[in-house]
Amino acid sequence: MIRVAIIGAAGLSGLELIHWLRFHPQVELTVLTSSKYEGQTLQALFPRFTGMSQTFEKHETNVDHCDFAFLAIPNKASLDLVPELLKKNIRVVDLSGVYRLSDIPVFEKYYKLAHTSPELLDTAIFGLPEYYKERIGNANLIANPGCYPTGALLGMLPFGNLLENLSTAPILDAKSGVSGAGGRVEDDTTNYVTVNENFKAYKVFNHQHTPEIEQYLEELTGYRAQQHGDLTFTPHLLPLNRGILTTIYLRFHDALPVEKVRASFEEMSENNPFVHVLPAGAFPDLAMVQHTNNCQIGIAHDESRKNWIVITAIDNLVKGAAGQAIQNMNLMFGLDESTGLI
Amino acid sequence: MIRVAIIGAAGLSGLELIHWLRFHPQVELTVLTSSKYEGQTLQALFPRFTGMSQTFEKHETNVDHCDFAFLAIPNKASLDLVPELLKKNIRVVDLSGVYRLSDIPVFEKYYKLAHTSPELLDTAIFGLPEYYKERIGNANLIANPGCYPTGALLGMLPFGNLLENLSTAPILDAKSGVSGAGGRVEDDTTNYVTVNENFKAYKVFNHQHTPEIEQYLEELTGYRAQQHGDLTFTPHLLPLNRGILTTIYLRFHDALPVEKVRASFEEMSENNPFVHVLPAGAFPDLAMVQHTNNCQIGIAHDESRKNWIVITAIDNLVKGAAGQAIQNMNLMFGLDESTGLI
Amino acid sequence: MIRVAIIGAAGLSGLELIHWLRFHPQVELTVLTSSKYEGQTLQALFPRFTGMSQTFEKHETNVDHCDFAFLAIPNKASLDLVPELLKKNIRVVDLSGVYRLSDIPVFEKYYKLAHTSPELLDTAIFGLPEYYKERIGNANLIANPGCYPTGALLGMLPFGNLLENLSTAPILDAKSGVSGAGGRVEDDTTNYVTVNENFKAYKVFNHQHTPEIEQYLEELTGYRAQQHGDLTFTPHLLPLNRGILTTIYLRFHDALPVEKVRASFEEMSENNPFVHVLPAGAFPDLAMVQHTNNCQIGIAHDESRKNWIVITAIDNLVKGAAGQAIQNMNLMFGLDESTGLI
Amino acid sequence: MIRVAIIGAAGLSGLELIHWLRFHPQVELTVLTSSKYEGQTLQALFPRFTGMSQTFEKHETNVDHCDFAFLAIPNKASLDLVPELLKKNIRVVDLSGVYRLSDIPVFEKYYKLAHTSPELLDTAIFGLPEYYKERIGNANLIANPGCYPTGALLGMLPFGNLLENLSTAPILDAKSGVSGAGGRVEDDTTNYVTVNENFKAYKVFNHQHTPEIEQYLEELTGYRAQQHGDLTFTPHLLPLNRGILTTIYLRFHDALPVEKVRASFEEMSENNPFVHVLPAGAFPDLAMVQHTNNCQIGIAHDESRKNWIVITAIDNLVKGAAGQAIQNMNLMFGLDESTGLI
Repeated sequence: MIRVAIIGAAGLSGLELIHWLRFHPQVELTVLTSSKYEGQTLQALFPRFTGMSQTFEKHETNVDHCDFAFLAIPNKASLDLVPELLKKNIRVVDLSGVYRLSDIPVFEKYYKLAHTSPELLDTAIFGLPEYYKERIGNANLIANPGCYPTGALLGMLPFGNLLENLSTAPILDAKSGVSGAGGRVEDDTTNYVTVNENFKAYKVFNHQHTPEIEQYLEELTGYRAQQHGDLTFTPHLLPLNRGILTTIYLRFHDALPVEKVRASFEEMSENNPFVHVLPAGAFPDLAMVQHTNNCQIGIAHDESRKNWIVITAIDNLVKGAAGQAIQNMNLMFGLDESTGLI
Repeated sequence: MIRVAIIGAAGLSGLELIHWLRFHPQVELTVLTSSKYEGQTLQALFPRFTGMSQTFEKHETNVDHCDFAFLAIPNKASLDLVPELLKKNIRVVDLSGVYRLSDIPVFEKYYKLAHTSPELLDTAIFGLPEYYKERIGNANLIANPGCYPTGALLGMLPFGNLLENLSTAPILDAKSGVSGAGGRVEDDTTNYVTVNENFKAYKVFNHQHTPEIEQYLEELTGYRAQQHGDLTFTPHLLPLNRGILTTIYLRFHDALPVEKVRASFEEMSENNPFVHVLPAGAFPDLAMVQHTNNCQIGIAHDESRKNWIVITAIDNLVKGAAGQAIQNMNLMFGLDESTGLI
Repeated sequence: MIRVAIIGAAGLSGLELIHWLRFHPQVELTVLTSSKYEGQTLQALFPRFTGMSQTFEKHETNVDHCDFAFLAIPNKASLDLVPELLKKNIRVVDLSGVYRLSDIPVFEKYYKLAHTSPELLDTAIFGLPEYYKERIGNANLIANPGCYPTGALLGMLPFGNLLENLSTAPILDAKSGVSGAGGRVEDDTTNYVTVNENFKAYKVFNHQHTPEIEQYLEELTGYRAQQHGDLTFTPHLLPLNRGILTTIYLRFHDALPVEKVRASFEEMSENNPFVHVLPAGAFPDLAMVQHTNNCQIGIAHDESRKNWIVITAIDNLVKGAAGQAIQNMNLMFGLDESTGLI
Repeated sequence: MIRVAIIGAAGLSGLELIHWLRFHPQVELTVLTSSKYEGQTLQALFPRFTGMSQTFEKHETNVDHCDFAFLAIPNKASLDLVPELLKKNIRVVDLSGVYRLSDIPVFEKYYKLAHTSPELLDTAIFGLPEYYKERIGNANLIANPGCYPTGALLGMLPFGNLLENLSTAPILDAKSGVSGAGGRVEDDTTNYVTVNENFKAYKVFNHQHTPEIEQYLEELTGYRAQQHGDLTFTPHLLPLNRGILTTIYLRFHDALPVEKVRASFEEMSENNPFVHVLPAGAFPDLAMVQHTNNCQIGIAHDESRKNWIVITAIDNLVKGAAGQAIQNMNLMFGLDESTGLI
């Protein structure tokens, strides 16, 4: 059994980790931390976990008896804690954004935070199992992808070097439920009457996930910002609890070979248990993926075959956070990557 | 023109007052206050009021040049401010709860607040126009009814002395949208992911509107708590923005005369522009009343005619707050009570 | 492995059965029927079941090779099909309402349907495991309880003979999400713009679950309609997908012994994996139970201890339908009743 | 007084017309038609119109005594009825899509309908008051713009000839509430449980509003499909009742003069009562415009000033349908265009 600590277990991602790990056949939920709820029991605070006996401990609690830690805490807290845990040989999946970007000035611009452990960036592996499976297996530190980048990248990566032919940089119009856009943050922006029956864009030309998408797109495909221009990523806030739908606009100089594109997506589908491409003409909705670790993908092109639209749907709390984190843990411990997940 | 001040103009009730008064033919919106937004303009903060030129002032601003004030501020602030305004001969409709209850110990028990101006209770008139029209016209201080009591009382008062025959005290099961249950309070209880796709009761056996309903029911009908028992009022929180639906259970010793009951409701309907009784067999929903000052009422009885259910629907921000407040102001200034309202 | 047929697999209850049975360790999903979708595959129509290979067959398909059938079809269709299946020695959990009421005239009044197999009523067992566990184990035909009766009964049955002391019949004010109130019925009443931001009562004094609640309450407690009067049950339609919250008002002649009442609820909790009573002062909300087979219960009384409010929450598609059906199947086959459920 | 007929008064657009015209100072609501509800009264069917005395008549009713007709009926029905009304000298605002497109083959491709009165296309004026004010005043037949084209065009037209410099055709990612996407259509696609907590794109590369946007964009600006390519328009379905937010992506060869762009939008704002451009850095949400005839617009560019995002918000039932229709009627009768609207 893997003895697991969840640091930051009472936030939305932490609670989602508990939801899935509760029945994971190889995991023992050894430590749950929450500064806010220290000393209180899980089942009293969250009766949907009735029957579980854990009590929240403070973040600083000793986790030496654990094999593994999920970190679901703010960026600054992850920067402080990850080096400590690694020194103790506790392997880590970090759900914060601090080990994803290789370019420190870009990181500091978007996160408004000094990077205090840049030496770890080389060993941290980006936890997108569909593209880094082998390296994840050998890693001690996984930078779990952002929710938006997960949905964005899975819709573009299969184009591979075809993206060299882009006539203009990708445009990504993403729409997220409240839990993916800062949910449970206790301020006016996620108050019920502010969000309900409403819809808006936010962080236009300015979201911290933009460089994350760009970096891994450049690393894995023929897209080059210098040549094609910066991609545009616009997040919007949907009046619903969970799910991200990303509408991706790709325009090419030349007509693309349709069969080749589909074949590439189908290959990704066949090799990965949680990625599914829909039949031609079909597009995903959020209901298809909520409460699952799946990414569902629809692809369309116009008559010229130069203009393409890819739409991806994920549950931001599962494939976009806790589920993908568990998938990464499975790979790190040599388990089937879908263990304990659906 | 009536020169009007809205003290507390940036909360939900204050904004709703602005919405309606903007086109009121006899009102000039002279002063809007908001401690939080002092110095900022209405239209910049709330673009739905584009075209209006008012700037928020602090609560302590001088309102001597006004004829009238709506108070939409916390209970304690109303206790402090009302006596001052009355001394300056500014007539007041107070939307707080502090001048509604005549029994000081009951007030202090439910509001957890010492009453600092009990001498005003005698002159304050309960602003339910359907039952206190004449006295409202002559008043300088109106205690605007609570949103729940408005929906509850309009569904029971027409029974009048028939309530002497109750076999058990009324049971009121009320369901309110978020704006009627503390909306925009910036804590976890009205956070989007807490409320959305969820439903619960709150303040069971313990809501401060219970004695308000009981007091005016005793004053105006044959119901007596000492004889029939205390009425039960249970509020619930609906995942929607606005509206209160109250399901009222009345049980009698004897079969009630059906025609007489209907006639009493129809008489209230005919004499009051904002109260409407639906045909037999029909019941209101919230869509019928949202964004209007109407109260829609449905009545049913079982075969024995001893068990009755009355269901009332109001918009908590209109008939339950701002609309009723304006209706009261109209009466105070000798205008048609429906001026500026629908 | 139990070879299972789901007759009516593409409705909301049928799909929920698939959701849970997909990972049930003792079940093989042998036949899925849907007249509407005959010949189409499950995963193409409902991509959230990607990876499953079943194809919908017509309702009349041969199920002789199955050990067991869930029926999630209209009342009339169940009346026709159940006798046939039993003759073939296929054990059945019927989710329709046709084998729940023992009084045929009452059944025909509320269901507007002639009962064509009254001889089965004696052998059909009401599938409320908390009260009929042993008989369920031996039964060939289970009448799965209605969603409203499940939430209503679990909140009242623990009072047992204390209900002899009722001073007036119980009043049940129930609120259901759309899937529990006829969801996916393709008419105007469940259209999005009709339901969203709206709320209403329906079938006032007239819902077919009223006699079901009354029958089993009389069978299992000291409540007697002839003495205490008919209970009142009022369903309301909530703007959300799933969950039923039932607010139960009980009034007694005498003060009830508080500890005895709590002890009775706690005993039910301890003996049954899916019923949980909350600590004094706490009440359930729907989020606690959604996507689980749990019933969460809160209890309160006023100072006199004569007036009690019990609030129960269930997921109408799980404990109110598919989950309870599986719990019953587990008992019928000698499995732990919580197999495959959470 | 203008004697007005609303043909198709019981659909969502028809009811919204009634809502606004009820208090229009120059209008008498002379005829309301509804085939479905012929003979029934408005206030009985829709209690929110309590106090109004109209009865629905059949569509074929004689409207010779009217001066003016709004048509809110299906496309085919408008094709049949408009020529008749014009012959009787009844002026018409047609809310259907049949007189908007000048290219008959394009019309027939997207609407799957033969055009039976092409001779009227020359006299029909596109009812976008911000750009066709004078011609609307003189017209007898107005083709009221589609809801999506209204939001799309108002966000692009002020660029005028700057659009000649586009490096790629505009990409429009639009999100509509249910009432703008076929609401009250009584089929599965707008059923509550299908839409609630869900989100999806529809008619990808295939929505009939695409050529409407393209035609008027070409007519009024420097955009040319032949040179810049076809614009891409993708509608999505939001889980809310009303409102359309359109995110418009424009990319140019050269850096655009920021002040000139803003000046152009501000000029449109100043000259038109219902169009408002927000300050730099601000973007609209749907709450700003719901239940108003306003279009709120936010504009942003990246550091290169070559990439622009414009976001517009309208209420699809008001500026996107009934409100704009009334604005057009006002202009046709020489009234102030904002009469009866907010």
